[in-house]
Amino acid sequence: MPSALENLLAHSRQTVALSQVSMLISWDQETQMPPAGATIRAEQSAALARVLQERRADPRIGEWIDAIDLAALTDVERCNVEEARRIHEHAVRIPADLAGELAHAASRGQQIWGEARKRNDFAMFAPALKHMIALRRDYAARLARAGMSAYDALLDDYEPDTTAAEIEPLLESLRPALTALRERIAGKPRGPKLMGRFDRREQFGLSRRIAKLIGYDFGAGRLDLAVHPFSSGSPCDARITTRTDDADPFGAIYSTIHEVGHALYTQGQADPFLLSAEYSSMGVHESQSRFWENQIGRSRAFTGVLFGMMKESFGDFGIADADTFYAAVNRVETGFIRTEADEVHYNLHILLRFELERDLFAGRLEVEDLEEAWNERFERDFGRKVTNVSDGILQDVHWSEGYFGYFPTYSLGNIYSACLDKAMRADMPDREAMIASGETAPILEWLRERIHRKGRLYPPAELIERATGEPISPQPLIDYLNDKFGALYGL
Amino acid sequence: MPSALENLLAHSRQTVALSQVSMLISWDQETQMPPAGATIRAEQSAALARVLQERRADPRIGEWIDAIDLAALTDVERCNVEEARRIHEHAVRIPADLAGELAHAASRGQQIWGEARKRNDFAMFAPALKHMIALRRDYAARLARAGMSAYDALLDDYEPDTTAAEIEPLLESLRPALTALRERIAGKPRGPKLMGRFDRREQFGLSRRIAKLIGYDFGAGRLDLAVHPFSSGSPCDARITTRTDDADPFGAIYSTIHEVGHALYTQGQADPFLLSAEYSSMGVHESQSRFWENQIGRSRAFTGVLFGMMKESFGDFGIADADTFYAAVNRVETGFIRTEADEVHYNLHILLRFELERDLFAGRLEVEDLEEAWNERFERDFGRKVTNVSDGILQDVHWSEGYFGYFPTYSLGNIYSACLDKAMRADMPDREAMIASGETAPILEWLRERIHRKGRLYPPAELIERATGEPISPQPLIDYLNDKFGALYGL
Repeated sequence: MPSALENLLAHSRQTVALSQVSMLISWDQETQMPPAGATIRAEQSAALARVLQERRADPRIGEWIDAIDLAALTDVERCNVEEARRIHEHAVRIPADLAGELAHAASRGQQIWGEARKRNDFAMFAPALKHMIALRRDYAARLARAGMSAYDALLDDYEPDTTAAEIEPLLESLRPALTALRERIAGKPRGPKLMGRFDRREQFGLSRRIAKLIGYDFGAGRLDLAVHPFSSGSPCDARITTRTDDADPFGAIYSTIHEVGHALYTQGQADPFLLSAEYSSMGVHESQSRFWENQIGRSRAFTGVLFGMMKESFGDFGIADADTFYAAVNRVETGFIRTEADEVHYNLHILLRFELERDLFAGRLEVEDLEEAWNERFERDFGRKVTNVSDGILQDVHWSEGYFGYFPTYSLGNIYSACLDKAMRADMPDREAMIASGETAPILEWLRERIHRKGRLYPPAELIERATGEPISPQPLIDYLNDKFGALYGL
Repeated sequence: MPSALENLLAHSRQTVALSQVSMLISWDQETQMPPAGATIRAEQSAALARVLQERRADPRIGEWIDAIDLAALTDVERCNVEEARRIHEHAVRIPADLAGELAHAASRGQQIWGEARKRNDFAMFAPALKHMIALRRDYAARLARAGMSAYDALLDDYEPDTTAAEIEPLLESLRPALTALRERIAGKPRGPKLMGRFDRREQFGLSRRIAKLIGYDFGAGRLDLAVHPFSSGSPCDARITTRTDDADPFGAIYSTIHEVGHALYTQGQADPFLLSAEYSSMGVHESQSRFWENQIGRSRAFTGVLFGMMKESFGDFGIADADTFYAAVNRVETGFIRTEADEVHYNLHILLRFELERDLFAGRLEVEDLEEAWNERFERDFGRKVTNVSDGILQDVHWSEGYFGYFPTYSLGNIYSACLDKAMRADMPDREAMIASGETAPILEWLRERIHRKGRLYPPAELIERATGEPISPQPLIDYLNDKFGALYGL
């Protein structure tokens, strides 16, 4: 007869396999599904979400866990049991109907968001958003433990073991540093903007070559086009998407590098079905994507390599040399779009969303007033008026899918990635020369060893501290930005 | 409180949605999945198969059905309840573990078959096949009611309400007619073989245009490449695949038309989630694919249209006129490959497989002797020695996935399609002129009304009889073949 641990692991393994199926049909929805499929995909997603919810709430899980002698387990085994317990305790609070409704609303909401964004019409999206927020409020109320805010309950899904109150000072400490840096840069001569048209098919081919160069395994993944780039999947099948724009090849390139960063983490998991091998938190996940995108992808060394690849792909595109190209990649400019933001502005975009999300779930803000609230605060933080709602509140897919509490993990990711970068530079003094020669495998291996293969063995902050030898802090990010942009702009 | 009927329908609706997910991940495996994904896909498929099996065996289904007053239902409602009962009674006999193992073995088996076929090595595939047959024997033993053979139990999954003993005389009655026709044709001058190379990308584009021409809705489907062409999905998302071969554009074209025939049936279902709206049987499904492939696609009228499209795609390809092209499309030749067989030989390929399958499940034949048995019987039926196992027993994917009892439904489909063709010609005397002008919508509508929208309301034989006004019989097929090839070969 199998032991309680064996029963628990076998059950969990199948649940993980089913959750991979759930990710796969979302990927299909974004990349392959014909238009009419939308009418049934929402029901398919909902049916699978219900199944997952029921499985995770299965009372046998509690019985198996009670029968396990935790003291007799290895660290990895104990981690699997603790994760199974956490997921189970979460699931018993959420009825399968609510899980199904959330999945249904996410699938439909995303479709409506896509349409509304195309038509530049927030009112078209508002009812779906209102419905999603109502479902998420219900969801949060069921999850919140005593004294926990609704927002913290949501945050817990993405960044366990932390609260908005802990995150806020970390993130807010970036604001004065970033605005001061922006002030110092203002008026200084900047790198040029890319001009002209860049063949989209060639952008896609170049994206593939870059992904390969930095270690993405196409034998265990694939690259497709999607409206909103994302990565999803599991170690043996970690898929990524990008998007192309005639006028802006950097969109395709840096979206690709960002998603490759996520996928390298996934491809590096120690096991495809063990909970202990899964990613530590969304903040840590974003630390991987942002690290490859910024600390590597936007470095002087890497942009030197990229400049050569761009010339091979597009011929002369009006940039004279690698230094000018580096300045073009890192051109600082106040723009409307988060995903296109430079490193100086990026976290200010997140702070705005973080603020609005907390207001929505504290009952201080309703959907009716959201567009105005966005536009007001955007002007306050960025000094520009939003005239196009697709460049304003309709720019991100996240809320349409019910991802509230997700945005701050991007800034946590930036903070973590700078911590990792500082430690890696100390370990690898010749890193820039290595990158310049097109060699990034040792960088990947450094991350594999310290982050990817560790899975969920430690809470996010501990994982980063073990990897870097120092407690997490926003200072490495502030130093990195001041150093980089100080040098670039001669401050 | 919802009624028992409402509960049953809601539960069934979700099960259907999950079975659509299961089809989707199989489609993905064949068309999109990166190689390493194979290692986890089998577990994902198995997990989903278990879930489906458990849902279908849910004891509440029996309780709901018992509480329903069948006499008070509409025909459609009663059909849904009866279908739910049939599926439930089937499911309670199959443990979820066995369902999971079968799905796992199918996913793995297909991968191994693909490798073995590539390497032309039956021994490489034999263990997987042996394992699958053992699982299917167990499965059949659990399903077989008193006095039912194992093979009939398998057949029941594809062609309900019939037995091998009923099918055998139908199919065997074709053998003397087909061999006599083959004899009469032998030695007569045949249409030419296509020569030269045909650009594969252009073949794919042409396949798309043909699919569109005969009514396939790309808004509710898509066409991709796969090793073994297939169709799968649901009314709003019915996907098809084809394959291309430099030397043989007919492969791509007629695989596409065949799969479109299936997909038109699916796209024409009255409802995406009701059991009553699903296809009547695999024989009826094949009647749709074979009808479009042969009675329409290989007709003089349609090949006239196709000849023009081929010239547009490939320029002059060495065929002088539409009559010669018609003869080329319908060139009769003894070949090894079922899917490439002409209409005279096709059912002889099926008869061989039907015979071997029954022997395997009657315990008269084991996997060890299968390759030899195949080769022996092939030489007996076709007069040619199999020298290449990939052109012999390794040519079909079906057995690797555990589809035993499926092959005879192809010949049933041919018989049904000829019955439908006879009735349609009587209803539509100007059909050939219509096809020649590129108009096929009334043909589709004739099938939609009589077959597609009827779903599962009647057993297969009754459905065909209602559509045609005559009981099913092999005679229309024999007459059709004698007429067509008699005229073509001047017999």
